[in-house]
Amino acid sequence: MDRLRQRTGKRFGTADDGLLVIEQPGAMLEASRRWRRDGKTIGLVPTMGALHAGHLSLVELARRENEVVVVSIFVNPIQFGPGEDFARYPRDPGRDARLLHEAEVDAIYEPSAGVMYPPDAGTRVHVGDVAEPLEGKARPGHFEGVATVVMKLFAAVEPDRAYFGQKDAQQVAVVKRLTRDLDLGVEIRVGPIVREPDGLALSSRNVYLDPAERKAAASLSAGLRGAADAYAAGERDPNELRRVLSAPMNSEPLVRLEYAEVVDPATFQKPGTLAVLAARVGKTRLIDNHDLRLPFLG
Amino acid sequence: MDRLRQRTGKRFGTADDGLLVIEQPGAMLEASRRWRRDGKTIGLVPTMGALHAGHLSLVELARRENEVVVVSIFVNPIQFGPGEDFARYPRDPGRDARLLHEAEVDAIYEPSAGVMYPPDAGTRVHVGDVAEPLEGKARPGHFEGVATVVMKLFAAVEPDRAYFGQKDAQQVAVVKRLTRDLDLGVEIRVGPIVREPDGLALSSRNVYLDPAERKAAASLSAGLRGAADAYAAGERDPNELRRVLSAPMNSEPLVRLEYAEVVDPATFQKPGTLAVLAARVGKTRLIDNHDLRLPFLG
Repeated sequence: MDRLRQRTGKRFGTADDGLLVIEQPGAMLEASRRWRRDGKTIGLVPTMGALHAGHLSLVELARRENEVVVVSIFVNPIQFGPGEDFARYPRDPGRDARLLHEAEVDAIYEPSAGVMYPPDAGTRVHVGDVAEPLEGKARPGHFEGVATVVMKLFAAVEPDRAYFGQKDAQQVAVVKRLTRDLDLGVEIRVGPIVREPDGLALSSRNVYLDPAERKAAASLSAGLRGAADAYAAGERDPNELRRVLSAPMNSEPLVRLEYAEVVDPATFQKPGTLAVLAARVGKTRLIDNHDLRLPFLG
Repeated sequence: MDRLRQRTGKRFGTADDGLLVIEQPGAMLEASRRWRRDGKTIGLVPTMGALHAGHLSLVELARRENEVVVVSIFVNPIQFGPGEDFARYPRDPGRDARLLHEAEVDAIYEPSAGVMYPPDAGTRVHVGDVAEPLEGKARPGHFEGVATVVMKLFAAVEPDRAYFGQKDAQQVAVVKRLTRDLDLGVEIRVGPIVREPDGLALSSRNVYLDPAERKAAASLSAGLRGAADAYAAGERDPNELRRVLSAPMNSEPLVRLEYAEVVDPATFQKPGTLAVLAARVGKTRLIDNHDLRLPFLG
């Protein structure tokens, strides 16, 4: 596989096996257009770093489907609300770079917050109805921040395909709508949720959990498993499905359920077959989801 | 110059001299990426049709600076307010196509409103402070409509350069800000205002004017000329410059001035050197502007 030598100070591996690290959108676009001129297809995996096996499964999928793989690492300040965890969000650039080197990605796009948002940069992308309920209501401004940064990443990388995790199901719906509405010409590919043995969905935020919280957090996926079992057994009443979905979390003292609904996976309106939930485990906010038409294999 | 054969039903000229007419964003992007793979640079001239010499001067500039020129024709419904002239905005696709054929453009991108805005398409691009005063205040939602359609046109065409007329000065500032804020990687080129012999700036809306209004409309450019003369003579007091700028319009019974200000051409905040104005001439709303540091040559 052809690789470019990196041009910045950060180098990993030998020159033959160089990993390009790009920090400016102009340089990123230049690199992408060079690949494209050489007839190569480009896959982008947008991340906020703190990589786990869920991210790496997306990278692997991108590797299989494209000749060039770019992974962006950017903890996007504008998708965090005032009381949220932007400052303490886990960051480990050295480990991320090693993992991406081993995963044979071609480039890391890693702009600084100052490059992405100069002081007078006020342009925002606003996605309508699909961004409004659930996460949109719980985290005002979150999806505007997501849509704006995804637009910027797509503009800088001009990928053929971009890879998102099903874990953030409403984000997937928002990105698909944005991509269609703005004619971005990017194929949105979705990778399945990767789970721990007890069912907990992988998330960079799981490191916040203390041992007792970590144990209690299994109640989120237990709810999804229960709802999937009930659905498989023929249950279709939305209220009953929500009751089954919520029960394990409601009986966990360390868990406070924020919402549990069954919605349409494209519009996030009711009714539907996608069970989605958000809950606090201690102070940590976690989300999870499962399409009830499928067996729960977590 | 290399040309592609058109693939749609609309054909102008011989096959050797074919003008590509493209109606879908996907087909547009495909054509652009083919040109780019061939190493060609692409210039985009976004228009709402009803082409006049101002548009054609932009096409000529694009022709000189790029190997491929795309002109988009789309009367963008979402940049018109409820009481505005969307329905009666002048449309003459046959004449536009002939003019663009003569101007040797490579492709017309002419999507329908249904293609651009399917019923559930709610995504909008919102540009902050530069879009707020003056035209932004007079026409709520106008610049959000402009920013959204420009984003879509840039995404479908992926041009190296895009051409806008100085006539819509605040639109130029909004597009420049949008392009920088979203990392679009497009060079924004601005063509000078083209004027009638009496100074009236060319506008597709000038056809609305009856003979008396047409004569009265010369008071707009007369104000700009007066302000430029005063500036050249050393006048720097903003209130005096505004008085001189407004005087010819205020003494015209058919003209009702909406605003006349001297602002910064990049931010549209005061103070600055760009004289901008909007006025009703009869029922027709016209805008004009002039950088006071330059002699008025209209």
